[in-house]
Amino acid sequence: METLRVELGERSYPIHIGSGLLDRLPSLLPPLHGKQILVVTNTTIAPLYLDQVVAGLTGFKVDTLVLPDGEQFKTLDTLNQIFTALLQHRHNRTTTLVALGGGVIGDITGFAAAAYQRGVDFIQIPTTLLSQVDSSVGGKTGVNHPLGKNMIGAFHQPRCVIADTDTLNTLPERELAAGLAEVIKYGLIRDPDFMTWLEGAMPALLQRDPVALTYAIRRSCEVKAEVVGADEREGGLRAILNLGHTFGHAIETAQGYGEWLHGEAVGAGMLMAADLSCREGMLSTAEVQRTETLLRAAGLPVRGPDAMSVETYLDKMAVDKKNIDARIRLVLLRRLGEAIVTNDFSPANLRATLAHYSA
Amino acid sequence: METLRVELGERSYPIHIGSGLLDRLPSLLPPLHGKQILVVTNTTIAPLYLDQVVAGLTGFKVDTLVLPDGEQFKTLDTLNQIFTALLQHRHNRTTTLVALGGGVIGDITGFAAAAYQRGVDFIQIPTTLLSQVDSSVGGKTGVNHPLGKNMIGAFHQPRCVIADTDTLNTLPERELAAGLAEVIKYGLIRDPDFMTWLEGAMPALLQRDPVALTYAIRRSCEVKAEVVGADEREGGLRAILNLGHTFGHAIETAQGYGEWLHGEAVGAGMLMAADLSCREGMLSTAEVQRTETLLRAAGLPVRGPDAMSVETYLDKMAVDKKNIDARIRLVLLRRLGEAIVTNDFSPANLRATLAHYSA
Repeated sequence: METLRVELGERSYPIHIGSGLLDRLPSLLPPLHGKQILVVTNTTIAPLYLDQVVAGLTGFKVDTLVLPDGEQFKTLDTLNQIFTALLQHRHNRTTTLVALGGGVIGDITGFAAAAYQRGVDFIQIPTTLLSQVDSSVGGKTGVNHPLGKNMIGAFHQPRCVIADTDTLNTLPERELAAGLAEVIKYGLIRDPDFMTWLEGAMPALLQRDPVALTYAIRRSCEVKAEVVGADEREGGLRAILNLGHTFGHAIETAQGYGEWLHGEAVGAGMLMAADLSCREGMLSTAEVQRTETLLRAAGLPVRGPDAMSVETYLDKMAVDKKNIDARIRLVLLRRLGEAIVTNDFSPANLRATLAHYSA
Repeated sequence: METLRVELGERSYPIHIGSGLLDRLPSLLPPLHGKQILVVTNTTIAPLYLDQVVAGLTGFKVDTLVLPDGEQFKTLDTLNQIFTALLQHRHNRTTTLVALGGGVIGDITGFAAAAYQRGVDFIQIPTTLLSQVDSSVGGKTGVNHPLGKNMIGAFHQPRCVIADTDTLNTLPERELAAGLAEVIKYGLIRDPDFMTWLEGAMPALLQRDPVALTYAIRRSCEVKAEVVGADEREGGLRAILNLGHTFGHAIETAQGYGEWLHGEAVGAGMLMAADLSCREGMLSTAEVQRTETLLRAAGLPVRGPDAMSVETYLDKMAVDKKNIDARIRLVLLRRLGEAIVTNDFSPANLRATLAHYSA
């Protein structure tokens, strides 16, 4: 097991990464304020890991809530189901929520913890590669609104994160690839050596080799923690973590949540960002090609949805949270391994990129 | 105009109190981050003050949202209407929400500001006495759940509060009395001189004398700011602000939100707290009588709802947020002007108090 500590003053917390961690829960839990725990999971994960997790929480009064699985359920209505469960079981403000599942479970449970009685503790047990590398660090929680993704939420840090690589053995191939999109992102935005390592290690990662996975998760969390540690509430640097996300969110919103996986949309979006960076004279065509090759090797889509028009992209991109006073801001690549946030690009180049990947 | 500054480090903000302030908005607004404003108000307040407020927000892109009036609409569904309005009008994270109305509008708009894009600015323009003295300080925002009041929310400080005493001229008598309950509370928990002043000034307050009102609001906010400043996130001292609230919440929850006004329920609850304090050997019967006389002079109920049983009280009180591991904690009075938080009281005395005020 490897342990990475996210340094955030009094809200610092550990991320434990490795194989067999669900069997070692008692030794990994931080001291909790109370005796009540609500484990929130979904219909896919519950039959696989819920009993194992509950068995590890001896000495606590454990309640469980099984939500439907899917991004389309990341709503205020589902959030309210968590509040209802907490109130029905009379959880007080010393309770701890445990999020057992992927990014949707983590985001919605984290937001429930942020808002229940104006804030209680929570622990993340991410069971997808995407959530292990992405939701583990940063404290972003929230739900979607029909008019925009992740528009409602809070910054709320977990007390600890437990990322068991064994849970990835039950992960569908498509979701593994979606997770690899975010892993690749950390190479693209900040670590060219990691990108080179990924080009070599991709076959091992796709075979779910635990050693390769542990390194990929650890390095991804490290990069994210560096960036977040420097900018906890997203004033500046942190925005580079959104490489591909403005394009990706447009795809997800236009298609309706749940059609494209988040990581798939981000994968296609990162390639669009690379292409626009090339048109803006920053990346070479060879570097765009190298990005595409790596995404393709991971099994990710390298273009947008067929029916999606340039106008639809632009319309959906206009409500992105990074925008200030209605100008679209994007994360672009100055080179492979270095990202910038800018609204200084040619609208014609943006249109050309969008047309290229939707044609 | 008097201005009180709530000192909370980088989240410090001013409370402006006085007559005619809505006509002076431009000079009272703090510097805002962006050009977008959403004014949230309700169907009662909109015809009275919305035009005046919008007229004072020159130079901004102002949208408005008029919600139904009443505690029964302080729900996640109504909250979502605010998010929908913000997204439909494409408000970004530099937007500012303005809460124009009473406590419900302030709480729900403040929570919308806390959660929209994980946090935007908001300004409070409270138009009831209750919200001017209670919601102005403390940063508590939130909505109700059918199983419990204020169970969902966030701590989120306003950028400034503008309390115009002229808006109290349109306040129904019953709501004025409900606000006076909270004013009386500040005397009871921390300031015996203020309680004495209130006994003399009650006729002027009921006649809405602006000088008396300005002093009552200012002194209430000062006491609350002292308490909150010492304990921003409700670890200890701050809980004394809940004098009467555990009883009051039980009344509100049992009756369904909207039947009793919050201040009315708190008024009856404070008398119950005083009575229990007397049974516990802290207050004299004369002091309980003095409390009852002042509450009665303010036009407040001095007993609970007729049909409410002791068991119903105890059941509803058991989910209160102050409880730790299922023991009921209450704010009691050591003497008039000094409150304590304790679970060290006789259950039999609690039952006797509840029986006395529901018989």
